[in-house]
Amino acid sequence: MLGGGFYSRHSQPQRAAARAADAWLVEAATAVPLPEAPTPLLIGDFGCAGGANEMAPMAAAVDAIRARNGAVPVEVAHTDLPENDFGPLFALLESPDGYPAGRTGVYPYVVGRTLYGPLFPDRRLHLGWSAITLHWLSESPAGVPGRTYPNLMSAEQVEPFRARAEQDWRLFLAERARELVDGGELVIVAGASRPDGTSGAEGLFTMIDEELAALVAAGTLRPQESERIVYPTYNRTPAEWTAPVAECGFDLLATELSHTDDAETYGGTADGAAFAERYLPFVRAVTERPFFRWLDPDRTDQQRTEILEAFYGGLAARIAADPASAACRWHVVSLRLRRKPR
Amino acid sequence: MLGGGFYSRHSQPQRAAARAADAWLVEAATAVPLPEAPTPLLIGDFGCAGGANEMAPMAAAVDAIRARNGAVPVEVAHTDLPENDFGPLFALLESPDGYPAGRTGVYPYVVGRTLYGPLFPDRRLHLGWSAITLHWLSESPAGVPGRTYPNLMSAEQVEPFRARAEQDWRLFLAERARELVDGGELVIVAGASRPDGTSGAEGLFTMIDEELAALVAAGTLRPQESERIVYPTYNRTPAEWTAPVAECGFDLLATELSHTDDAETYGGTADGAAFAERYLPFVRAVTERPFFRWLDPDRTDQQRTEILEAFYGGLAARIAADPASAACRWHVVSLRLRRKPR
Repeated sequence: MLGGGFYSRHSQPQRAAARAADAWLVEAATAVPLPEAPTPLLIGDFGCAGGANEMAPMAAAVDAIRARNGAVPVEVAHTDLPENDFGPLFALLESPDGYPAGRTGVYPYVVGRTLYGPLFPDRRLHLGWSAITLHWLSESPAGVPGRTYPNLMSAEQVEPFRARAEQDWRLFLAERARELVDGGELVIVAGASRPDGTSGAEGLFTMIDEELAALVAAGTLRPQESERIVYPTYNRTPAEWTAPVAECGFDLLATELSHTDDAETYGGTADGAAFAERYLPFVRAVTERPFFRWLDPDRTDQQRTEILEAFYGGLAARIAADPASAACRWHVVSLRLRRKPR
Repeated sequence: MLGGGFYSRHSQPQRAAARAADAWLVEAATAVPLPEAPTPLLIGDFGCAGGANEMAPMAAAVDAIRARNGAVPVEVAHTDLPENDFGPLFALLESPDGYPAGRTGVYPYVVGRTLYGPLFPDRRLHLGWSAITLHWLSESPAGVPGRTYPNLMSAEQVEPFRARAEQDWRLFLAERARELVDGGELVIVAGASRPDGTSGAEGLFTMIDEELAALVAAGTLRPQESERIVYPTYNRTPAEWTAPVAECGFDLLATELSHTDDAETYGGTADGAAFAERYLPFVRAVTERPFFRWLDPDRTDQQRTEILEAFYGGLAARIAADPASAACRWHVVSLRLRRKPR
């Protein structure tokens, strides 16, 4: 994700989507076993980015714990990739907008490792939260010429993405099952496809594919660069999300498919140019790094800047010309999982 | 400290100094109480910067724990200020040079908060290490015209630095005493003054004061900017280091005053120009941020760059002209402290 707080400032759709599960997080915090003193209760926040969307859910979870026991120390572990820019998160944690403000006995920390692997010792974790993260793949399968978005690929083209997503999800569940205490819970919100296989972002990514093709045709982007550009996510269907849950050690307490409408989040699409101007920073925040880190190594900084400006300028024009098609209606799955007794 | 790994690449004197206490860290790891499963053992590393100097001591401590119990999970909490650049630390932890490589059941994390305050819940910590950090003050007292270095100030001028250092040290000890289990240990190495009040860096800081005065005389630096420049540290004497230890809940198991000689670390001073070239990146790594963050806010980026180049260029010339006086002979205190039973 883009660092320096850019992602945090342009991630309103992610927070809007995650709200679907806020109530479940509080219910889980009210239900998980409390440790005996002096063992602290540990909350894991899996995929924190710059932290802007993490403060409200963590505050609610801590308050729910405190309502049960005013004295239990609460550790909150925010995790993301080691190359994530954690600076904005630390700044938020020190600010009046951070959940530590006004709450005593709260101990935040950061783990800079992939969540598709071990993060904590056995039975250390009591409650986990992951919002708008688990549709990202641990690594990017090979690119597909002309297509950046798995939901727009053919069945054969999408297979490596599906297989990687299945492996990632099982690994995440297995490690969390090891780390959670019996009765501990996970509340997860993540990008999803509807049972028919559509995600609601097909319109935007069709414009993205068209703009990339236009850049290649104009000679701005090289064909081999365009072929490497991919959005390394996979939106599992509800059936794909729930399939391995029991096998990996969890009871599925609740699940729901909901959506967030970017047309509403960004103030409507009646004025196409105005919508494009408001919407583009969000699109840029989630695509710039995954798309353009793979430019040829001989590219100068100036060339990179020119490519980025040409791409996002052209995409803005396409969004302005047909804002209703561009505005995503993201489908998200919410899951509430409880660790089975061992 | 300078981010992006610059500090880590130019901190050989800090590691040389900390080696004095490496053996004590292993002894402490061999002596501290081990937790009962599934509680993990927690090692605190207080003041990690970019992490280059932390890998070897943490590896040795983990190995000493593992020699006693091969199964105990070990958490390692690296702490530094929230504005620290933790990126190089996370990169190191993922690399073959990181102590997690080849060791299972090791769980590193990061706390971005001042160590002069709470970091962990009560009785969570088993073993602590702090190398070349605790002579830095929690905040900088007012500047002293013409003097950047407390060891070169008059008794009256230095008093706010001494008082702040005493308060900081007591706060550090009190919080760690709260966090440590009974019998838990701290091993500390930090800048110190000899009983006569000299630190061994007076020669270098005299050159620094002279160069700053020359920049003011030349109109490069404004007088009010020069007056704000200070090196916000205090090198406690051995008596000042040990005075509050018992009162704050610790037994003093061992203490020692040793030194590290930058003339040796940087390959001798026979060739002044060559020594200055090797030595300057270290001097810059520890002084650039504390000295020059307080330039007037109207300064352009270009002016800031010009001031920095003028200062470090002039300082290099002074070092080259008298390398034997410039080369610090840092005095460091080592302390091994054990938490008294409550």
